[in-house]
Amino acid sequence: MYDPKPGDRLSSLDTPSMIVDLDIMEENIRKLFLLLQPTGVSIRPHLKTTKSPILAKKLIAAGAKGGCVAKLSEAEVMCAEGVDDILITCEIVGPAKVPRLVELFRKYPKIQTVVDSKEGASAIDAALKASGIETPIQVLIDLDVGLHRTGVAPEAALPLAQHIAKLGHLKLIGVQGYEGHLQHVHSREQREKECRASMVILSATATLLREEGFDIQVVTTGGTGTAEFCATVPGITEVQPGSFIFMDSDYRNAVGTYFSHSLTILSTVISKSGTERRVTIDAGLKSLTTDSGNAEPKDMPGVVYTPMGDEHGWLTWGVELEDFPLGARVEMIPSHIDPTVNLHDFYYAHRKGVIEEIWPVATRGKVQ
Amino acid sequence: MYDPKPGDRLSSLDTPSMIVDLDIMEENIRKLFLLLQPTGVSIRPHLKTTKSPILAKKLIAAGAKGGCVAKLSEAEVMCAEGVDDILITCEIVGPAKVPRLVELFRKYPKIQTVVDSKEGASAIDAALKASGIETPIQVLIDLDVGLHRTGVAPEAALPLAQHIAKLGHLKLIGVQGYEGHLQHVHSREQREKECRASMVILSATATLLREEGFDIQVVTTGGTGTAEFCATVPGITEVQPGSFIFMDSDYRNAVGTYFSHSLTILSTVISKSGTERRVTIDAGLKSLTTDSGNAEPKDMPGVVYTPMGDEHGWLTWGVELEDFPLGARVEMIPSHIDPTVNLHDFYYAHRKGVIEEIWPVATRGKVQ
Repeated sequence: MYDPKPGDRLSSLDTPSMIVDLDIMEENIRKLFLLLQPTGVSIRPHLKTTKSPILAKKLIAAGAKGGCVAKLSEAEVMCAEGVDDILITCEIVGPAKVPRLVELFRKYPKIQTVVDSKEGASAIDAALKASGIETPIQVLIDLDVGLHRTGVAPEAALPLAQHIAKLGHLKLIGVQGYEGHLQHVHSREQREKECRASMVILSATATLLREEGFDIQVVTTGGTGTAEFCATVPGITEVQPGSFIFMDSDYRNAVGTYFSHSLTILSTVISKSGTERRVTIDAGLKSLTTDSGNAEPKDMPGVVYTPMGDEHGWLTWGVELEDFPLGARVEMIPSHIDPTVNLHDFYYAHRKGVIEEIWPVATRGKVQ
Repeated sequence: MYDPKPGDRLSSLDTPSMIVDLDIMEENIRKLFLLLQPTGVSIRPHLKTTKSPILAKKLIAAGAKGGCVAKLSEAEVMCAEGVDDILITCEIVGPAKVPRLVELFRKYPKIQTVVDSKEGASAIDAALKASGIETPIQVLIDLDVGLHRTGVAPEAALPLAQHIAKLGHLKLIGVQGYEGHLQHVHSREQREKECRASMVILSATATLLREEGFDIQVVTTGGTGTAEFCATVPGITEVQPGSFIFMDSDYRNAVGTYFSHSLTILSTVISKSGTERRVTIDAGLKSLTTDSGNAEPKDMPGVVYTPMGDEHGWLTWGVELEDFPLGARVEMIPSHIDPTVNLHDFYYAHRKGVIEEIWPVATRGKVQ
């Protein structure tokens, strides 16, 4: 039976397989803390990238303050695996979801969540009231700082805070504002400038709420593309980078090479019966996402990857190059790391080609 | 605990959830057999769409001859669940994969696979020889009929057949030629014309091999976009449509509405704090793929969906429309069905809003 184990060499892995170079990953973690810890902000990494409680614990061991998840179903997995200092960064809305939040909160009272409407806040409050739980749940007001995806407009933050204060089961502890539209702006100068403008909105809203008597302890924001800027803005207390740990080609094009590609998809040349300067590998849309462009072959300048359906891709090259033999292995760098990880069930983490650890992608597919 | 069950109403489902309208799905199956059975070809549906042995068995009950899968790891799951008349439509290459094929074949001797190189054929032969299994494995020559993804050129088919004949452990039973580049050609006339040109290559190659004494029983091809044309070409014995069962917007744009959308992703409006005529739903890149364009809201003319990251999407509209309340449910039609199904763990199959069956997406993530 095919059953890869620590100690095996990468060459024994079937493909496509998701592999992580531990030396590079550990260096990425070290560099993140080197960059951000001197600023004094808390680092609450977004776990929607790794989808792994094992990796969450490695980050906490390195100095992270818990973690973020996007969805309630991710929080359920993380908490059950002992990672229970969790901020859920998406609004929890609707009669099918709010009771799940209440159940989770009953067992894991450190859970934090966000709200961006009076109606949403009231629904959570009503469910908590009905549950008989006496401790209030910690909530943050989600503020729209320019992404226009979720979050209240700045002028609506105070009325929402006042509404929350009247409810008995929500404790307002902070403000979240995610500038997701800036993460991939390729010019560093422009990214920093626009980020600082977004941070002014966030920080000013926190100040306004404090002046109105609210105890705003947490002002949380930022991703891999902006955390270093956010962390130096007065009033920001916490940043949420995620992708830095593995990186992807889209982030590298924006952020540069301070962090390195630690994750690749190992694939195999399975057909070369076509024309010259083209072979077909076994990784397509089901192994590498295309929403942020196509993946790139690692360390193969001049070689271009083109997805050819769910299970195939072309490698083509216009330069003089030694041909790929049938069965050749190629490492592919994802263009967008989070949804690519979501396609795979396991990480094979290696050091210099020898597998050290195998991690399940425990929150893969947890979209609820 | 959140635990949906048959008998529950769709309104009780958390979101995003993948739902199937059984009345429509059953009608799609009925219509496929109505269209193709009179031609006398075998129908071997491609199971890379549904990824479910339960659905494979429903298709077999309707008249299908086994099924196709793309990858060996899919075949492993199908066989273990009792669906063992399986053609693996992708080349199996490399020392990590060939032994897995041999193991599977030992238990399930009906397995068929494809080859497109002498080297690939020899490697499978050598592994079978070493295994001590005496029955030869059934193989088809994979022919390039214009997709240029895998498959030998027509002139290389005979030398490959002659090579296979010299090996002791491979039994050549047929030829496969998949015209994947034509499935989504939007003009029916052009699609039919180009398909018939591809089929001439396939059929002529089969004839040539027969004239050279090879016992070519199977000539297999076709997808949802072309099966009806392929099935009427003399010499074609088998077609492989998959997507017809659920459909998607890309296939509808090409093939029309003979088959209807039976699968949607149920989602919820979770934020409406932005501008007028825009709300945010809880389905993004992790629930709906974008490789073939963006998903569409079902039965909502004038409403446009735009993905906004892994977990969010916008609905926007330029027309006069009743606003969506917070918590409103929206059904989204995928743009590309196979990779979208691959994002989800379960199908919730309903009739008129009441869940009848829950099917695991058993071969989700099986890319090896």
